[in-house]
Amino acid sequence: MRIKACRKAHFNAAHRLYRKDWSDEKNTQIFGKCSNPKFHGHNYDLVVAVTGDVDPETGFLIDLKVLKQYIVEEVEEPFDHKNLNEEVEEFETLNPTAENIAIVIWNRLRQRITDRFDIEVTLYETPRNFVIYSGE
Amino acid sequence: MRIKACRKAHFNAAHRLYRKDWSDEKNTQIFGKCSNPKFHGHNYDLVVAVTGDVDPETGFLIDLKVLKQYIVEEVEEPFDHKNLNEEVEEFETLNPTAENIAIVIWNRLRQRITDRFDIEVTLYETPRNFVIYSGE
Amino acid sequence: MRIKACRKAHFNAAHRLYRKDWSDEKNTQIFGKCSNPKFHGHNYDLVVAVTGDVDPETGFLIDLKVLKQYIVEEVEEPFDHKNLNEEVEEFETLNPTAENIAIVIWNRLRQRITDRFDIEVTLYETPRNFVIYSGE
Amino acid sequence: MRIKACRKAHFNAAHRLYRKDWSDEKNTQIFGKCSNPKFHGHNYDLVVAVTGDVDPETGFLIDLKVLKQYIVEEVEEPFDHKNLNEEVEEFETLNPTAENIAIVIWNRLRQRITDRFDIEVTLYETPRNFVIYSGE
Amino acid sequence: MRIKACRKAHFNAAHRLYRKDWSDEKNTQIFGKCSNPKFHGHNYDLVVAVTGDVDPETGFLIDLKVLKQYIVEEVEEPFDHKNLNEEVEEFETLNPTAENIAIVIWNRLRQRITDRFDIEVTLYETPRNFVIYSGE
Amino acid sequence: MRIKACRKAHFNAAHRLYRKDWSDEKNTQIFGKCSNPKFHGHNYDLVVAVTGDVDPETGFLIDLKVLKQYIVEEVEEPFDHKNLNEEVEEFETLNPTAENIAIVIWNRLRQRITDRFDIEVTLYETPRNFVIYSGE
Repeated sequence: MRIKACRKAHFNAAHRLYRKDWSDEKNTQIFGKCSNPKFHGHNYDLVVAVTGDVDPETGFLIDLKVLKQYIVEEVEEPFDHKNLNEEVEEFETLNPTAENIAIVIWNRLRQRITDRFDIEVTLYETPRNFVIYSGE
Repeated sequence: MRIKACRKAHFNAAHRLYRKDWSDEKNTQIFGKCSNPKFHGHNYDLVVAVTGDVDPETGFLIDLKVLKQYIVEEVEEPFDHKNLNEEVEEFETLNPTAENIAIVIWNRLRQRITDRFDIEVTLYETPRNFVIYSGE
Repeated sequence: MRIKACRKAHFNAAHRLYRKDWSDEKNTQIFGKCSNPKFHGHNYDLVVAVTGDVDPETGFLIDLKVLKQYIVEEVEEPFDHKNLNEEVEEFETLNPTAENIAIVIWNRLRQRITDRFDIEVTLYETPRNFVIYSGE
Repeated sequence: MRIKACRKAHFNAAHRLYRKDWSDEKNTQIFGKCSNPKFHGHNYDLVVAVTGDVDPETGFLIDLKVLKQYIVEEVEEPFDHKNLNEEVEEFETLNPTAENIAIVIWNRLRQRITDRFDIEVTLYETPRNFVIYSGE
Repeated sequence: MRIKACRKAHFNAAHRLYRKDWSDEKNTQIFGKCSNPKFHGHNYDLVVAVTGDVDPETGFLIDLKVLKQYIVEEVEEPFDHKNLNEEVEEFETLNPTAENIAIVIWNRLRQRITDRFDIEVTLYETPRNFVIYSGE
Repeated sequence: MRIKACRKAHFNAAHRLYRKDWSDEKNTQIFGKCSNPKFHGHNYDLVVAVTGDVDPETGFLIDLKVLKQYIVEEVEEPFDHKNLNEEVEEFETLNPTAENIAIVIWNRLRQRITDRFDIEVTLYETPRNFVIYSGE
């Protein structure tokens, strides 16, 4: 009985697309208005999907209250109402594109969730732009 | 021309998370407020996805009016405005978690839809909690 | 500078449409499957709108964190994961239609929010059925 | 034939709740994490409603393509992918709460739209927090 | 106890913006691609709001099943999967703008719903363009 | 670092389900009201997902502004505010079911996007009916 259980969360953050080793001109040329040095921001929506076998005793794949708590600790507390470039360790040297934010979130959750479960992270930067990462 | 065709439906039902072979104390300890003996309820949203080869004559995978009718007969009529624990046969002995409800729906639809098609059931218990089952 | 500030919340509850002073037959005749004696349930979505003058010092009408807390105390804690008919005092003798639930919520919040502000309650029983009450 | 015609738009921006004439301590005490000095951000959703008499010749209240263009010029171009506190003139001395942003947008649009029409601005800071201003 | 009760519905239809007494050139000049002579179409979403006093006996303003049925008979059956210009009587001589469609729907429902109730019609032509008419 | 990046778009179009080599009677018998000879229409929502390896230099899978432009050129300009049966070349001889529209869109985009990336097209004909095609 292999099932995928999903939990939705969200956080509001500022960021800019930016590589420190590029000039401001090159950053603007490649990333356009997304590289505004004074930052812009988003309401990020996040779906974390966990796949594995249903526990026959509880009928749960995973207690979603537990998954919710992992997301609070690994994503909402460190990311919400923050400047991703300047206040989240991983983005000191990593460009906070939606792709990279999803990979960082996946890596953080991978350390909290048993290896018996696969993890998939969907990150909406806007309702029209989103990415999906599953650690492949 | 392998395609996935999807139909969304919904039903409103009462339930509680509960195992008859556990004491009320143990049910509450494991399932928290979801085990309230007087029940609570949800507007369940359901997406049924059917995957197979497009019929070159009609350009349909499956006539969605037919799929809609299967969902009415197998899910909406038996589940809508019902108490899942007390009025749906499968949950007399099975805990109606989102995972188990999705599996029950999948099993009911599997008997109606040709084996040439794969089936995937996505069940939203709330907009933030949902599960996906495809019979694996 | 008169403005309306709104906060969305939600709760999941069981209910049935039912008048104690009517027979089961009459309840079923008037309320149909919504009167199922074993209950059904909903994910209720709630929007509370507060209207008044913006505070020139803070730029807030009302601190939405405060409004959120009133909603938690007056609505989410007493209503969420509950059976409205059997576990919420006001519905012991009042039929929990969407209309009446909205009026009960409005009355509860009216006691917490300053009279300088008007209050409007929108209650979604389903995404297709909702009511709006403003104390008129 | 008095009608309200509405157009939805959006913009992504960074901001912090902040009064220059208050200390950082007081800003944090009143505005909490919304006053983070390194900024955070939102996907703001905007609905502009214009009310007046339908033009019997065209059957339009207002050509929504024209209203869309006003919103592009007065809101999306100056606000999108910007830091509201540092890059939008009105917020140099005004705290960019949702309330104040809605009032600023209303004032900008009021100068573009004929006085025969009333204007109402709904601004969603998040899907759960929003404000409505109509110039009263 | 004055309340507003709302019911959402939808229909899919083809239309073009067009006045018979104008040349094709003038229609295109005023209405742009919306006047394409071969038609285009929309999934129209409709919210019908009815305002009045709650019935103290039932706790309903209006039985929403009854309102749903009025909408089926007056809107969905005559409009759904139809060409509004060519198959709906009112639009033989009236340009089917969102404004005019809302007014036609309001007039149809006004004949079915008791004068003790006010009616308001919200019609979404797209998620970004919508109009509201209340018979004023 | 294999990731899926998604972009949402939409277009409004008229269509009818129809095979030229069948009689009107047979078309109506198989396709029902969807075969109305005077057409009906939809607001189609489209999600294009592109899967491949993240570019370590930019942190992008693909610049979504570029993907957006491909969708404008290959889908929105040729399909929006058009009659699919009469104004889109591929449907001169192909029945414009949701399945076939998704396949046509996939084929158009396949010619614009590098073979290093997989493509998946999700097409919503209505919020309740949608199909997914990935070229298998």
